[in-house]
Amino acid sequence: MPTFKLLSQKPRRGLLKTPHGIVPTPAFMPIATRGAVKTLTTQEMKTLGADIILSNTYHLFQRPGLEILKKHNGLHAFMNWSGPILTDSGGFQVFSLTRLRKITPEGVTFNSEIDGKKITLTPESVIDTQFVIGSDIMMVLDECPPWPCDYEYAKKSLATTLDWAQRSKNHFEKRVKQKKLTPTKRPLLFGIVQGGTHEDLRKESITRLVKIGFDGYAIGGVAVGEPKNEMKRITKMCTALLPKDKPRYLMGVGKPEDIKMAVSFGVDMFDCVIPTREARHGQLYTTKGVMKIKNERYALDTRPPDTSCTCFTCKNYSRSYLRHLFSINELLGLRLATIHNLHFYLNLMKGFRK
Amino acid sequence: MPTFKLLSQKPRRGLLKTPHGIVPTPAFMPIATRGAVKTLTTQEMKTLGADIILSNTYHLFQRPGLEILKKHNGLHAFMNWSGPILTDSGGFQVFSLTRLRKITPEGVTFNSEIDGKKITLTPESVIDTQFVIGSDIMMVLDECPPWPCDYEYAKKSLATTLDWAQRSKNHFEKRVKQKKLTPTKRPLLFGIVQGGTHEDLRKESITRLVKIGFDGYAIGGVAVGEPKNEMKRITKMCTALLPKDKPRYLMGVGKPEDIKMAVSFGVDMFDCVIPTREARHGQLYTTKGVMKIKNERYALDTRPPDTSCTCFTCKNYSRSYLRHLFSINELLGLRLATIHNLHFYLNLMKGFRK
Repeated sequence: MPTFKLLSQKPRRGLLKTPHGIVPTPAFMPIATRGAVKTLTTQEMKTLGADIILSNTYHLFQRPGLEILKKHNGLHAFMNWSGPILTDSGGFQVFSLTRLRKITPEGVTFNSEIDGKKITLTPESVIDTQFVIGSDIMMVLDECPPWPCDYEYAKKSLATTLDWAQRSKNHFEKRVKQKKLTPTKRPLLFGIVQGGTHEDLRKESITRLVKIGFDGYAIGGVAVGEPKNEMKRITKMCTALLPKDKPRYLMGVGKPEDIKMAVSFGVDMFDCVIPTREARHGQLYTTKGVMKIKNERYALDTRPPDTSCTCFTCKNYSRSYLRHLFSINELLGLRLATIHNLHFYLNLMKGFRK
Repeated sequence: MPTFKLLSQKPRRGLLKTPHGIVPTPAFMPIATRGAVKTLTTQEMKTLGADIILSNTYHLFQRPGLEILKKHNGLHAFMNWSGPILTDSGGFQVFSLTRLRKITPEGVTFNSEIDGKKITLTPESVIDTQFVIGSDIMMVLDECPPWPCDYEYAKKSLATTLDWAQRSKNHFEKRVKQKKLTPTKRPLLFGIVQGGTHEDLRKESITRLVKIGFDGYAIGGVAVGEPKNEMKRITKMCTALLPKDKPRYLMGVGKPEDIKMAVSFGVDMFDCVIPTREARHGQLYTTKGVMKIKNERYALDTRPPDTSCTCFTCKNYSRSYLRHLFSINELLGLRLATIHNLHFYLNLMKGFRK
């Protein structure tokens, strides 16, 4: 089987082979920022039917740090997850979380949010960090420009990003050779399409990345505050240009309706904090829309959150009980809401794959 | 089978029959203060081998309140727990948590911590509340005097407590008749021995309670700040005087070594916040003592918290990972620590029963 096997083009369905297992696409990747999907065990992730999870190189690099990850031979054993893991490169976090960062042709320098220490990320160091993590799918270091971003800045930024992409690929292949990784053990490397909302830059980005050659292509620089129609336009044009035989990953998107739209454009992979973060705020995704479980109207409601849902939460607990848990700030409430929302998202993807 | 079947007197082992199942003793009751064992599902409580849990009448009365509990036909369905539940009377909470409470012969009046509303608890109202909760084992309303407590106050307080005990029993029997509860559906009612650290008052308390006649007897007014040798002395003298054919419950105790001591004196039932509360502070009970998992010495330690433990946490996670979860304030850490500590306590009891 090739790394990515396209089972059907319309609707687009596929199988993505990674060192830790096969991911049926379209796929949603729950977020385990620092090596844990907030409130849940990996056993629960398995039960929920998650085929792959996403973790954050930037956060893992800071805590627990590479020494601890090395000691466990990587993130899989550390967090007790035997399935595939995709890690972002940390670029997005550096550009969204840190101040006084400095971009040079070499890489990006910033001060640690934990101890203020100066840290430099380069395309090469980020690949090496992901090898320590033991990622199944690695992302290249990119600059993710903010929205809005004028043409000149976007063009300049893209040049850096493309240069970094080539260096990432070179370094990745060097390491694969050095480590003598067989095809089944070799992780995948994804390039990231940038170019802001400028179609010619996006096009150039795709042409150049495809020339370098990656196992998959991510559409970056979306879900950064742009209007929804801009996100839609960019996603549509990028998916039309990207090679059909490689997986496409739309970074950081999104709401169920955004995912549905992107799937119809031919996107294969998604990640988003929405299901888990909104769960912790008492916002439950249901077939009838978002339910604000803290609302007093649910105080005496003995029905499950979603009467047609088969998740652990809906099979065992009432709206009234969930509301009670949120009203007393009981952590079990956050857990039950997280389980429900992830079930909703993962079930949505299952529906697309049918 | 009688309500309490003594299987062996030395070591003391028994079986306590309740409407929701049989509890082998000595038993430890994990605390579900407001209808949830903090961070855990009731499914996890079952897996851990909890035979009975404890919930707090005072807290449930305030939140979710009786209307919501009635709507679910009681706490069992509300929290999705099909096993036995013991509820305290709320007396301890009134005396330890509220200010400006007023004790009259009728009952105790205080202001709600939630909305400031004036609330009066009487022996009768507390029984009725426990019927709404659907408790398997009800506790009578008592006054729990603080430590230290002089003889005169303890004597006066005991007189009130004994009067309330008689009224509780009368009201309980009246309700059992009204509700036409068959022996298998009839909850149990426990009296509470008070009298401070004064042996003659404790003795009087036991004589009078036994004369009234309860399904079991609790030793109250301990674990309220008194020195350990006082707790030991009172427990020892009370267990020696209490009827051998009824279960004895030592309220709010304690550390594993205290439980071990009390079991040797013939105590059958325990509850304590220690395993769950200390778990949330990163204090893990192990066969080799308490492990402070946040300690830096565990940063690179890939061993399970307790190498000889068979709990879910120890079977799946390292000290290093647990420490990481606590260092990033990840709720999963609180869960895994709670599972471990409850396993330790429940396993300790299993050991006593062998």
